[in-house]
Amino acid sequence: MKYARLNVTHLGMTSAAFSDLEVAHRMADAARQAILPHFRSAGLQSDNKLDAGFDPVTIADRAAEQAMRSVLAELRPEDSILGEEFGETHGQSGRTWVLDPIDGTRGFISGTPTWGVLIALGDADGPFLGIVDQPYIGERFIGTPEGASLTGPLGHSALVTRATRSLSEATLFTTFPEVGTEAERAAFQRVSSQVRLTRYGMDCYAYALLAAGQCDLVIEAGLNAYDIQAPIAVIQAAGGVVTNWQGHPAHEGGQVLAAATPELHAAALALIQQTA
Amino acid sequence: MKYARLNVTHLGMTSAAFSDLEVAHRMADAARQAILPHFRSAGLQSDNKLDAGFDPVTIADRAAEQAMRSVLAELRPEDSILGEEFGETHGQSGRTWVLDPIDGTRGFISGTPTWGVLIALGDADGPFLGIVDQPYIGERFIGTPEGASLTGPLGHSALVTRATRSLSEATLFTTFPEVGTEAERAAFQRVSSQVRLTRYGMDCYAYALLAAGQCDLVIEAGLNAYDIQAPIAVIQAAGGVVTNWQGHPAHEGGQVLAAATPELHAAALALIQQTA
Repeated sequence: MKYARLNVTHLGMTSAAFSDLEVAHRMADAARQAILPHFRSAGLQSDNKLDAGFDPVTIADRAAEQAMRSVLAELRPEDSILGEEFGETHGQSGRTWVLDPIDGTRGFISGTPTWGVLIALGDADGPFLGIVDQPYIGERFIGTPEGASLTGPLGHSALVTRATRSLSEATLFTTFPEVGTEAERAAFQRVSSQVRLTRYGMDCYAYALLAAGQCDLVIEAGLNAYDIQAPIAVIQAAGGVVTNWQGHPAHEGGQVLAAATPELHAAALALIQQTA
Repeated sequence: MKYARLNVTHLGMTSAAFSDLEVAHRMADAARQAILPHFRSAGLQSDNKLDAGFDPVTIADRAAEQAMRSVLAELRPEDSILGEEFGETHGQSGRTWVLDPIDGTRGFISGTPTWGVLIALGDADGPFLGIVDQPYIGERFIGTPEGASLTGPLGHSALVTRATRSLSEATLFTTFPEVGTEAERAAFQRVSSQVRLTRYGMDCYAYALLAAGQCDLVIEAGLNAYDIQAPIAVIQAAGGVVTNWQGHPAHEGGQVLAAATPELHAAALALIQQTA
């Protein structure tokens, strides 16, 4: 292996020297370094600094996206980029990296450990590689065409969604009880009223828990492409199903339904689409 | 310091060899060891095992309380114990250790990293020492008469509540949007409608975030003594205020209002007590 790497280096530092997953890991590492000095830092400052425009989450958000874009500029200059903070950068490869440097900014400014760095790589058919990273815990949820895995405080393990097929056995997550519009909230409530347990407040971490076999459904609305592409890649690699509320691909964002199994997805989708 | 410890050891392993805080740390360490093998373990099992009565949270809950009680039997046999799982054990010292081995069991079974081990030591006037421990993250929030501190992934730091005095600048947490009874929910909503940001789903972790200067208010109902005594000790040591909804001591549980400052506490209490 060492020789292979040396040979590639001989040709110069080309993008082929690193797999897509290695590039994604480098991006996630760079984002961690950029964000962590700012996490919970507001608590150490006076409120006056907040009033004066000191905004740790905005600074961290931008620094992390810039750090990730620097990795791409070096190792994947031919790919396109869609980032929450700095918009679109067009490349020639037909592949796009979709980045949300801090998903869950309201959680971030409240000190919760459930925001995340989202990194996805996809093409016109949607994302095929994704990372959901939680820098404070030191947890990285990874999905690739070869499978899904978690690296965290307890080591490395495979990610596999739970086998839950019926709503009555399911745990459901969303971030805000309001969900979205009145109609969106009503659709959510139709599912919530049928499940065993509904929980709130986890931001992107809920999708990671679904991939990890810890919950069974996540229902949200009003998402952007960069909010959902990494979760889609991780959940699909772990065996789950993610669509929009029409049952179509969700990688453009909007209303999202993620489920541990196709059967559970169908049951939840039927309730969401039921006319009141 | 080494000589002092050696001298005490010479007298035999008496309880005086360890401070109350050292005893509490040993208990928290023991609880971590007992719980972590069970956290997220259900995701690795088939659903059939759950049906067959396999219940990782109950096993972990009991094992952790037994582990903490073993530490007390050795080092503080003269103290009383009130634990969630094994009830009351009466001692002669007038001091009581109040234990919740896993606060936030619904969060635990959903895989979230926001449940905690709660350890408090108090007397008839309430708790004066507390630990809120999050074993998966490796975070320990500590309150003593000498002050409050945090040990976690980013090292060791002091805990100080935020200086927020007005509701319009406050971040409010509760675990369930239902809060409790209809009247309790209405009281919560009166406060929620006035604050900058309301967040859900953090269990005991919300109190830890208040002590850490990351949020400003926590409002809950239906608590037991073992749910709130450790948070009280940590928040008070960090400069915050915790009472029940009548403004009286909250260490028996029930309806709880925790606030970063006395001014904010008074403003929230007035809204809670306002007749609809």
